[in-house]
This record gives sequence, C-alpha cells and structure tokens, in this order.
Amino acid sequence: MIQRIYNKDIGEKVGQEISVAGFVHTLRVQSKIIFLILRDITGVIQTVVEAGSSAFETAKGLSHESVVRIIGAVKESKQAPGGVEIGVKSIEVLSVADPELPIPVIVKGNDEETEAPTRLDYRWIDLRKPEKAKIFQVWTEFEKGWRKYWDENNFIQLYPPALMSTPSETGSQVFEVNYFDKKAYLAQSPQFYKQMGIASGMEKVFMVSPVFRAEESFTTRHLTEFTGWDFEMAYVESHHDVMDAEEGMIIEGFKAILAKFPDLEAELPSQPFPRITMKEAKEILAQMRVPSPEKYDLSPEEERAISEYVKKERGHDFVFIHEYHKSKSAFYHMRLEEGSDYSRRADLLYRGVEVTTLAQREHRVDILIKQAEEKGMALEPLKNYINFFRYGCPPHGGAGIGPGRFIMKILDLPNVREATYLPRDVKRLNP
Amino acid sequence: MIQRIYNKDIGEKVGQEISVAGFVHTLRVQSKIIFLILRDITGVIQTVVEAGSSAFETAKGLSHESVVRIIGAVKESKQAPGGVEIGVKSIEVLSVADPELPIPVIVKGNDEETEAPTRLDYRWIDLRKPEKAKIFQVWTEFEKGWRKYWDENNFIQLYPPALMSTPSETGSQVFEVNYFDKKAYLAQSPQFYKQMGIASGMEKVFMVSPVFRAEESFTTRHLTEFTGWDFEMAYVESHHDVMDAEEGMIIEGFKAILAKFPDLEAELPSQPFPRITMKEAKEILAQMRVPSPEKYDLSPEEERAISEYVKKERGHDFVFIHEYHKSKSAFYHMRLEEGSDYSRRADLLYRGVEVTTLAQREHRVDILIKQAEEKGMALEPLKNYINFFRYGCPPHGGAGIGPGRFIMKILDLPNVREATYLPRDVKRLNP
Repeated sequence: MIQRIYNKDIGEKVGQEISVAGFVHTLRVQSKIIFLILRDITGVIQTVVEAGSSAFETAKGLSHESVVRIIGAVKESKQAPGGVEIGVKSIEVLSVADPELPIPVIVKGNDEETEAPTRLDYRWIDLRKPEKAKIFQVWTEFEKGWRKYWDENNFIQLYPPALMSTPSETGSQVFEVNYFDKKAYLAQSPQFYKQMGIASGMEKVFMVSPVFRAEESFTTRHLTEFTGWDFEMAYVESHHDVMDAEEGMIIEGFKAILAKFPDLEAELPSQPFPRITMKEAKEILAQMRVPSPEKYDLSPEEERAISEYVKKERGHDFVFIHEYHKSKSAFYHMRLEEGSDYSRRADLLYRGVEVTTLAQREHRVDILIKQAEEKGMALEPLKNYINFFRYGCPPHGGAGIGPGRFIMKILDLPNVREATYLPRDVKRLNP
Repeated sequence: MIQRIYNKDIGEKVGQEISVAGFVHTLRVQSKIIFLILRDITGVIQTVVEAGSSAFETAKGLSHESVVRIIGAVKESKQAPGGVEIGVKSIEVLSVADPELPIPVIVKGNDEETEAPTRLDYRWIDLRKPEKAKIFQVWTEFEKGWRKYWDENNFIQLYPPALMSTPSETGSQVFEVNYFDKKAYLAQSPQFYKQMGIASGMEKVFMVSPVFRAEESFTTRHLTEFTGWDFEMAYVESHHDVMDAEEGMIIEGFKAILAKFPDLEAELPSQPFPRITMKEAKEILAQMRVPSPEKYDLSPEEERAISEYVKKERGHDFVFIHEYHKSKSAFYHMRLEEGSDYSRRADLLYRGVEVTTLAQREHRVDILIKQAEEKGMALEPLKNYINFFRYGCPPHGGAGIGPGRFIMKILDLPNVREATYLPRDVKRLNP
C-alpha cells in the first residue's frame, strides 16, 4: 500500500502516484468529469475524476463529509488552488456521511455569533472548519512554550486531585459529588495543593488541571469547568518575583506560537511588562472618566479601558495590576508588610481581559490564621490547609492562569467557549 | 541581597560568600560549634556555626524542618559530605516548624509498607524524603518525552471535560454530581471525547486528564481518581499502527528519563516490542503451568508470568497482548474482520502490570450499533456518541495510558499510591 501523504505536501510530488485521505469538502459532478475537493487537517486540494472509470461511479454517489482514500497522480493545473491537482485513479470510501448535515461545514463570513447553541450541539462538525482546528493547534503550541520554561527552570509537574473532602475556596460555588457513603467536592482551584507542593520541599511546581465553578454565570468568560494552569515557587521575595517568572513563561508561549503561526495577529511581548498598582490604575481611570463601581476592584469596562491606556501609552498588550486591598485579597495572600491594608496580589490583564491572578502567599501559620479569622472564615474546614504550614514551609508565591482566556484573546474570539473543546456551563453538558 | 544558589552547586563556589536556603535536616549542637545539615530540592549540605556569633544563638533554638536562609563562605572540608561545607555568617529563620513532627522525614531503610495511611495523612512531610521528590521529577521528564513525540508527530492537545450528562462507560462505577437542578457524571475515561476529536477531523489528538472510577477496589493498582494519558489517531490500518506509535512515545519517554537520571534501573526498550496474541499467551502460560481462571483474559498472576517469560526469552520489559475475544472487548472495538469473534484490541504489559489498553475503533455506524446491541446496551444513552460517526469519520485507533502505573514500575514502587501526588481511594479524600 502507498503511504498516505498530507494534502499540503502534494506540491512536492508532481508526476508521482500518491495516496491522500480526508473528508469530501465539495463535489461538483459534470457529465464527463467530477471535481472533488478533499479536506484533511492540512488543507484542501482539488482532485479530478474522469468519466469511464469505476472511481467516477463511486464519486458520483458520494455525500459531502464522507471520508475517502484516493490514489492518483499529481499534476500541475493552472485552475487548481495551489497550482496542482490529483488525477484520480481509485477512490475507497472509508465512511459514509448522512446526506443531511445538521450544521454546515462551509460557511461564508463569521459564524461565531449565529446559532452558537446549535453549533455547540454538533461541536464535532463545527470543529471541522479549518480555522477552528487552528484554535487548538495554537493552544498546543502555547502550552509547549510554557512547558519549555517550566522544564528549563526545574519546575516539577504535579497532578492535583479534583476530589476533595471540603470545598477548596468558599462553599457556595462548589459542586457536590456522591462519594460512596460520603460527600466529596470538586476542586474550585488547585490552590491548596500547589502550596502543599511547596511545603513538600519541591520548590517549584506546576499543575495542569480542570477547575470547577458552580457559578450561575452567563458571560462570555465564565464556564463551570475549565482548564487551569498553576505554578508555585519557593523563596520569592515578593509578588514581583512571581511576575518576573510569569513573564518568562508567557514569552516562551508567544515564541512557540509565532514560530509555528507567523501570520498570527500577536506580537512577542517585551520585558518587563508594565506594572501598575490598583491605586495608580484608579487614578488613570478617573482621568479617563471611566465609571468606577467598586473602589478596590476593576469592572470589565475598567479592565478594557486600562488595557487600552497601556497599549496606547506603553505599547504593551499586557499590564499587571498589583497591590490589592485586603477586602479583595484571599486570606492566604501576604500583605505588603505587616499591618498593611494591601496585599501582594497582582492580576494580569491581556488585551482587556484578566488572564492570571498571582500573589505571594502567607506562609507563617499565626498570621495565616489571623487573616482567616479577620475574614470571618471557619477554621475547621481549613485545618488540613493550615497544617501544611506548621512543620516548616518556605516563603512562596504563584499564579493561576486561564489558558482558554489567553487563546480567546490571542485569536480574538468572541467567547471563551470558542477556545474550549467542549464547553460546560449551567445549561450545557453535551455532547 | 545575594542570589540564593542550590545546595548541589556550592562545590563550585569555594572561597566565596554565598546564600543557600532550605529545611533544617539535622542539627548537632555542641558547646563551641553547631553542625546544621541543610536540605533543599537538590540535596543536603553541611553548614557549621561557631560559638560567639548571633547565628550561633539562632541555630541553637532551631527545630528540625524549620526553613532558614543562610549566608556564609564555602570552604573545603574533609569531614563534610561532598568535601565542602559552609562557614555560617548569618541565619535568617523563614519558617518555624513545630518541634513535634507527626511523621519523621529521616527514615532508615524502606518505609513504604510501614504506616502507609499515616504517611499519606501527612503527605507533605512524607514527600520531603529526597527519593520521593524524585518520583515526580521522573514523571515530569517521562511526560516531557511523550510530549516530544506528540509534538514531532503533529498531535493536537485537547482537554476533555470531566462533567458529562451520561456515564461514559457502564453506569455502575460512576460518580454522580449534583449539577444545578440536574445530575452530571464524572468521566470514567475520555474515550468518547478523543474519538470525537477524530470525527472533528483533527487526525491526531492527545489528552491528559483525570479519570474517575467509583470502584470499591482495594488493590495496589486501583484508585478512584487518577491521571490518564490518551491519544487517538486517524487513518490507521489496524491496531498494529497504534502499537507502532505508542512504542515511539514510550521510547521518547525513556530517553528523557535516562538522560536526566542515568542511574535509573531501567533501560531504553528496543523496537519492535514483542507482540503476542491472547491465544499464544494462553498456550505459553499453560506450558508454564500458570492457573488460568478466565479463558479470554489474564489474571494479575498471568500478567506477571507472561512478562517474566518475555523478559527471559526475548530480553524485553514490554509485551503487547493482542486479539482479544469479543467478550473482553468494548462494543466500540473493531473486530479483526467482519464476523470474527476477536477484536483489534491490545493491552501493553510492562514488568508484569498492564499500563495501556489500545484498539482500533469501529467507525462504521451500523456495525457500531450492532455491536452495542449484541452487548445488550441501551442505545439511548449512547446516542450522542453514535452520532459522532454519522456524518463521516475516518478509521482510527488509540490508547489509554496509566502513567502512574508506568512510574510505579519504572521505580519499582510497591503501590500506585506512591506514584500519585495525592491518592484518592474509597477511604481517602485527604489531605
């Protein structure tokens, strides 16, 4: 049998007999000739079937989206896209598609906003559009870049459990699991477990894991389940060390995607990324006359405005907003200094959307308990977590990253669902 | 401030003032001198504190496992491990450990089988033993190798959802989730979703995701949640193509770990791996007089015996057992040929333990439905899955891999729990 080659490679095979395989993208049947456009993961090619062969009879009966293997000779053709086409010798039908497709594969213009629920119901047909496979190819490359940084900087990968005996953050937005004769909860973040990695002496750890949020949110940025990237590093001096490290990861990620997809509308960010305190951000936004619904936090509108400001003034797609008020900090965020009302938390905005929350953590058990009590939290469910810090734990900090949001903004997608293979929300558990 | 260096690097700094940080591994207090052995992720070093300094007073009061930063001068020392030690100038206490540790960090001999539940209760202290961090460093490298193969062979990474509307395999071993006003189920495997990737035209996909099994198993190889690696590839001719590909992944994995850990008791496997049909395996086992409790499947004892046989006769740590009877095949496994009672399924054994199940899948919707009906399965819950094949789907096959089992056998650990950061079983949801 002839080894199958990718469609993108047929240009190198003019004059040779080759084998290709893929979906029937379009079919134009004339009395003497059939033009079958074949689509594989690398693109579409034109194949030509002449009357009088058994291949002609086979091609005539094909439905769109059926899968075929074709053997034929590559020849130059001025009419064909790419300047080459295949003169078909034989067609083998590998899979027959129902003639009635529930959604079209070929669409004119932007289909993002039209019939999104139906598209997602038939996600496996939706994803056949070539620009959709690219979303996940970009994600694959982006992650490869982050992993390169983690590898070169001695990070250890750990897999945190999704099943927990107590909710990891607050109790209200957690999914409950029937676990034999008990209840379990789905992790809302691997926060506690990455900090446990530091208490285990591993010094630098990263995690890739699903996180679950039982939130009744209906925004373009929220899902009930999404992939989180997390890292944590010991012996940091402040949250600035965490920002430094994350910049390195992001730069490796962009290097990887730009190497593979030079046509992307994204640029390699320069270091250091702009860093603005929340107080400075609020001053800038006041001058810009952007409404400020919350004194100590940014609304989505403010996030977009401050990103636009930084892009204009500093030419940068990224901006860290740091030094959050304690009311907007987790109990485990370390304060700027003892007694301060502000914490060593920073959020990273990319093109107007928050893609990361990071902080130096409080590793001193007495201060940690005090901060939990100040928030009115019950200590009993936190017992396991607090114990991590009782037997020695290095100072540390880390970040939680939403890669789906990154990909959404890199590719300018209207909704994080488009960057998610099979999005899950309040209404959607299918397919 | 002086940049901290790793303990392993102090040998290069003789005569220089440096900064190190880590856990107080041991402390030997004498009247004129204190020997403080400091442990970081790279190993232990000896530091020496002389009487009369403020560092001496600080060191005297330290508890084991407290975390300190030390500044001092590196000097040669015949008594010190590695031939160098640090003459301490200053000690900064970063974290104070309770003097009473719930479990020891320093153990003599093998602690695997003693007090395992207590060790796992205090997993973050258990993991401080240097040989335990190595487990996850080996995993990190092993995964890097697999990812290198996936990257070089155009695999696209997809993240499957854990939350599903219907159980992914049989209904009995599934965890139920309270999902707003409905029920959801935790994925028992990403099987359907990786096949959906093929129906989406992505051709080669891989997934790294948690899988959940509500099994009341109490073996050394079973957990209720574990990390699964999965891949799926289109246009395979048979399950042998899937085996070929997996061999390539495994070899990259071993190359990566052997490069970083040349002292590992593992060797680079040679290609091709031995492939034995189930029928041949049963014949060999009969000659070896190993009991055969099931005609069409291998018991754990048989798995060990056939692995030992292959190791002895063929010098190989791996063996594929293939051509399973239909009663031991999933409804979605393709038969050897139409009407055959045997399927294109293969299991991979490594050092006596099953680490992979792979198969060519049945992509023809009519045969798929027939095979589901033969198994007495209800078609309604399979509707979503079966629809993946109605609108064209390439022939394909793939594998599900248990990396925890791989790591367990590579490092000769007695239990998959030891290769799992935070194991979950019927009785364990903590920490």
